[in-house]
Amino acid sequence: MGNSVAHKLIVSHLVEGSMDAGTEIALAIDQTLTQDATGTLVMQELEALGLDRARTEVSVQYVDHNLLQADEKNAEDHAFLHSACRRYGLWYSKPGNGVSHPTHMQRFGVPGKTMVGSDSHTCAAGSLGMLAIGVGGLEVAMAIAGRPLRIRMPEIWGVRLTGELPDWTSAKDVILEMLRRHGVSGGVNRIVEYHGPGVESLSAMDRHVIANMGAELGATTTVFPADSAVREFLRGEGREGDFVELHADPDTVYDVTEEIDLSTVEPLIAKPSSPGNVVPVREVAGEEVSQVVIGSSANPGLRDYAIAAAMVKGRQTNNAVSFDVNPSSRQIFSDLTKSGATFDLINAGARIHQAGCLGCIGIGQAPAVGRNSLRTFPRNFPGRSGTREDAVWLCSPETAAASALTGVVTDPRDFADKVEMAHPRLDLPRDASVNTTMLVAPLPPEEAQNEELVKGPNISALPDFPPLPERIEAPVLLKVGDNISTDEISPAGARALPFRSNIPELAEFTFTQIDESYPKRARELSHGSGHIVVGGENYGQGSSREHAAIAPRYLGLRAVVAKSFARIHWQNLANFGVLALEFTQAADYERIENGDILVLENLRDSLPTGSELTVRNTTKGDQYLLRHNLSPAQTASVLAGGQIPMLARELG
Amino acid sequence: MGNSVAHKLIVSHLVEGSMDAGTEIALAIDQTLTQDATGTLVMQELEALGLDRARTEVSVQYVDHNLLQADEKNAEDHAFLHSACRRYGLWYSKPGNGVSHPTHMQRFGVPGKTMVGSDSHTCAAGSLGMLAIGVGGLEVAMAIAGRPLRIRMPEIWGVRLTGELPDWTSAKDVILEMLRRHGVSGGVNRIVEYHGPGVESLSAMDRHVIANMGAELGATTTVFPADSAVREFLRGEGREGDFVELHADPDTVYDVTEEIDLSTVEPLIAKPSSPGNVVPVREVAGEEVSQVVIGSSANPGLRDYAIAAAMVKGRQTNNAVSFDVNPSSRQIFSDLTKSGATFDLINAGARIHQAGCLGCIGIGQAPAVGRNSLRTFPRNFPGRSGTREDAVWLCSPETAAASALTGVVTDPRDFADKVEMAHPRLDLPRDASVNTTMLVAPLPPEEAQNEELVKGPNISALPDFPPLPERIEAPVLLKVGDNISTDEISPAGARALPFRSNIPELAEFTFTQIDESYPKRARELSHGSGHIVVGGENYGQGSSREHAAIAPRYLGLRAVVAKSFARIHWQNLANFGVLALEFTQAADYERIENGDILVLENLRDSLPTGSELTVRNTTKGDQYLLRHNLSPAQTASVLAGGQIPMLARELG
Repeated sequence: MGNSVAHKLIVSHLVEGSMDAGTEIALAIDQTLTQDATGTLVMQELEALGLDRARTEVSVQYVDHNLLQADEKNAEDHAFLHSACRRYGLWYSKPGNGVSHPTHMQRFGVPGKTMVGSDSHTCAAGSLGMLAIGVGGLEVAMAIAGRPLRIRMPEIWGVRLTGELPDWTSAKDVILEMLRRHGVSGGVNRIVEYHGPGVESLSAMDRHVIANMGAELGATTTVFPADSAVREFLRGEGREGDFVELHADPDTVYDVTEEIDLSTVEPLIAKPSSPGNVVPVREVAGEEVSQVVIGSSANPGLRDYAIAAAMVKGRQTNNAVSFDVNPSSRQIFSDLTKSGATFDLINAGARIHQAGCLGCIGIGQAPAVGRNSLRTFPRNFPGRSGTREDAVWLCSPETAAASALTGVVTDPRDFADKVEMAHPRLDLPRDASVNTTMLVAPLPPEEAQNEELVKGPNISALPDFPPLPERIEAPVLLKVGDNISTDEISPAGARALPFRSNIPELAEFTFTQIDESYPKRARELSHGSGHIVVGGENYGQGSSREHAAIAPRYLGLRAVVAKSFARIHWQNLANFGVLALEFTQAADYERIENGDILVLENLRDSLPTGSELTVRNTTKGDQYLLRHNLSPAQTASVLAGGQIPMLARELG
Repeated sequence: MGNSVAHKLIVSHLVEGSMDAGTEIALAIDQTLTQDATGTLVMQELEALGLDRARTEVSVQYVDHNLLQADEKNAEDHAFLHSACRRYGLWYSKPGNGVSHPTHMQRFGVPGKTMVGSDSHTCAAGSLGMLAIGVGGLEVAMAIAGRPLRIRMPEIWGVRLTGELPDWTSAKDVILEMLRRHGVSGGVNRIVEYHGPGVESLSAMDRHVIANMGAELGATTTVFPADSAVREFLRGEGREGDFVELHADPDTVYDVTEEIDLSTVEPLIAKPSSPGNVVPVREVAGEEVSQVVIGSSANPGLRDYAIAAAMVKGRQTNNAVSFDVNPSSRQIFSDLTKSGATFDLINAGARIHQAGCLGCIGIGQAPAVGRNSLRTFPRNFPGRSGTREDAVWLCSPETAAASALTGVVTDPRDFADKVEMAHPRLDLPRDASVNTTMLVAPLPPEEAQNEELVKGPNISALPDFPPLPERIEAPVLLKVGDNISTDEISPAGARALPFRSNIPELAEFTFTQIDESYPKRARELSHGSGHIVVGGENYGQGSSREHAAIAPRYLGLRAVVAKSFARIHWQNLANFGVLALEFTQAADYERIENGDILVLENLRDSLPTGSELTVRNTTKGDQYLLRHNLSPAQTASVLAGGQIPMLARELG
């Protein structure tokens, strides 16, 4: 039996464990990626670990999230990150250089390598045949320090592509088709591997679109083969020498299988407020639109902007629509401008913004309450846009451009018919405008040693967390439903993000999108034995931010009891000493109410010795059997109050 | 004796009064300009006045300030403004179309016309031979309603220009030279009129730079003749038919005179934190720079960006510098892009932002504390950047570009010498890329009548203010120094600006840059007879925002006692029922301390009958003679609790 691309990537980096799905393995990590919203904590963690110099092949710190600079905090974070890169031997990508994922792909991606990143869309690098996994910041810090990544061996999900995409559809519609079929947890504990003859028709940047939003399926990561399209991409970036061929063997048998005939894909759209809420565009055509935004790591390629520019060229966007364009990188903006596409977009009424994530992470571009905003972004979780009762839709650049012109949700095929527009033939340059001057290279070790970290007043110390107590008797402070995202636990957005380096301030935003009183109620309790949160399925989906573990922990969260957990958040809870427990009987979820007192006992003895434990509900006089899925290493971390106290003890 | 341009403009619009400096005159108003940060209140005032339709020739509502959309409030303000334009027959300039002043000049400016605008840089339109005056929002609302503007007849200050500017200097250095000579109150109660042979060498957009920052001199406005340069400008905008010639008579005698030989002007820079703090660039050369920003209404022309682009072309900005470029209008961005300048800027490392005011009004781009930021903006008042202890410098595009390349404050002449760069010859297009589709025209009256105002939850009602009491006995809650700006009274910035339509929320930011406890202390007192603020010279300089009167009034401010007042703020205080009083003996300022109780008596009798009144300081057992300069109309307004209760009573 042959081996998949995913298998080959894992085997070549396996340092511990065996490749049986569900068992823990440890992988050597070649590259890391951090962005500013999670990176300031990673740099504080490197400091806490006493690291002298990065031990990876390549580690890059991007600044792409907090670009608005509403006050001094953003600029001070940037200065801190730059100084940490100088100190620890990392690359520093300046604000304005672009979104981490496309920029990393353009400048650093190498087939056959492994990468971890403190951003859930790190998996986008699977487009080049890398094994790239989004994790919590602490795991990135440990990878930078040379430690292997520990994960549970996923299943490999082979998705065979056949045919070619029709006109007016593009890669975004392929991943939306996957989300239409499988929803936001269809990929949990799986690596999605695309293969088959249809793969050839997709450029490396098209594959980026699909790999990026594999995160929305809940997948561990996504991989594509490294074939001639990858070679061509690297050649265009002046890095053909980095190409390594990587294919699945012809007789590979996947753990799970799936097939998509690309020729049957049609324009799709995710309705508010979940990426899994996918329908054909025609089913919702005619809904009024007040904002259209093109950009983000989910549609980052030159092609994605060029097709929109070609569609709006010589036309005017609707009076009632704000048409926003966020270039994904300086390089792509440069090529767009050289080709005349920027000019066409401006003249059609686009607001062109600086290169970065911007509205995708709620950094500006917040729509009005309840008014439809169509975006080529990866996520539309409630409130992620920065607006409390938002109505965000996810679609392709083709659907976005057609809708910006008409002012209503519009299938691009119907628009083309109406205005008799032929499908644009894009004349994209073979070679990219490579300009690396906004990427500051690592200092040589002898210089780096003398660098000081530049810490503005907003860079707080990491809080100290005590060990897990023997007994938890605490109230359910909040009971939430299914698919609660880390955006809802610890929001991004222009108000909260500037505090990403300042846990005490950031904690005041915890869960406020669901319950404004949560921080206050938690603080009132926190001198006792803290509190518990009860969740439904897929608790903690979405963004990798470890703040969604640290901030509620800071407010006294000791345990989360849920039907199931999203992978990265589950790991982050363990990293910061919060006990993550699953119901063995999902129906028990219904028997708990806000305010119930739950009691967990003999924790220090019972956690290491078995995976099940009983919680008593003293309010209801009831009890439920729970399961923890912690590895021995994770159990030790939780008992110690988290990885940092544990490591600090090892080092001390 | 011949007549000045200013005299001709006033005579042709005089509806009341005689043209003796210092006496009240009333002027018919042809055009109005509002921007979003002040315009939402203007639209609420139109509603309160019961207006059916604008009675001006042209009234335009721009959206250029609040463009970040950190949450839903900005987008809802935009929807409200759009609906008000539809209802009242105003033009609506969409977000992204550009900064009001250059956009208005390009599309609507007509020599010989009068204009009021709720933005202190409205005076920029003087570049075309208009009489354009920045005023409070309520006066704009009244102008839209067809009422004349009442002002005190200013002196006419003739500034004769001779010679031509040397290479590496530009119009910004001319206005900085005026500020170097005269400081931020040198123009108070004056109209600055430029004349003489040197005027011919300045393009209309160069004159915009100089007229715009006339606001920083404290001048009532600035005027230039309407000559062949203005004709050429209007021709390039496709509006030659709007040209009207307007010159001062050869034998004009000005009230005050001045001369600048342009050939002697050198690169100048205003140091932190006042536009009046001007020195030669060479005197401060070598200071480290962390940010350089090009843009704003103070350097809005194509030329200002093109010269910077030509200087950085093929070069790279310094690693330690964030180089930000804010196009001033969609049209200029379009022309810049067509010419290749946008491409050159991107490749040199610029962060290109959407067209708008942005960092100029503290909407993003906040620098780190204490780190030098060089900007081509008009103002550097403390904290206006959004950063509490900021270090903002004001300079020309030439100085900005040279400093972005070197990373230190750099005279462009010295940079050119060092790199052997000839002064760039700019090949600017004769005709602008006119595209008016982001300017939504007024509806016909019959359609407009049926339009509803779209009010999101952040559009509050205007607060009700009671009449002035007969007796004020109140503490001095805050004593401040000279040149306190409206930015310090009611800050802009990304946190406060979204509340510009919501006085109760906005009031919480009042004076917080000077004293964080002010709102709380004021609220604690406000059930009594309120409080008093004591100020120095030029109290309330800067931005025209009437919020700087309304917000402290909302918190209980009843009187301001100062050495002198800036014109627009003084009028705004009267408009909203706050008594503005000047010391007759400036030295009395020293005899009052924070917390002293001041008593003013018999106000309803004494204000209308004389300009002097006595205040008793019961804490010190002292008393001071004060002066009010209120006209009978203003006195009536103050006694009534402001214009709105007075007008409401008239209408009711």
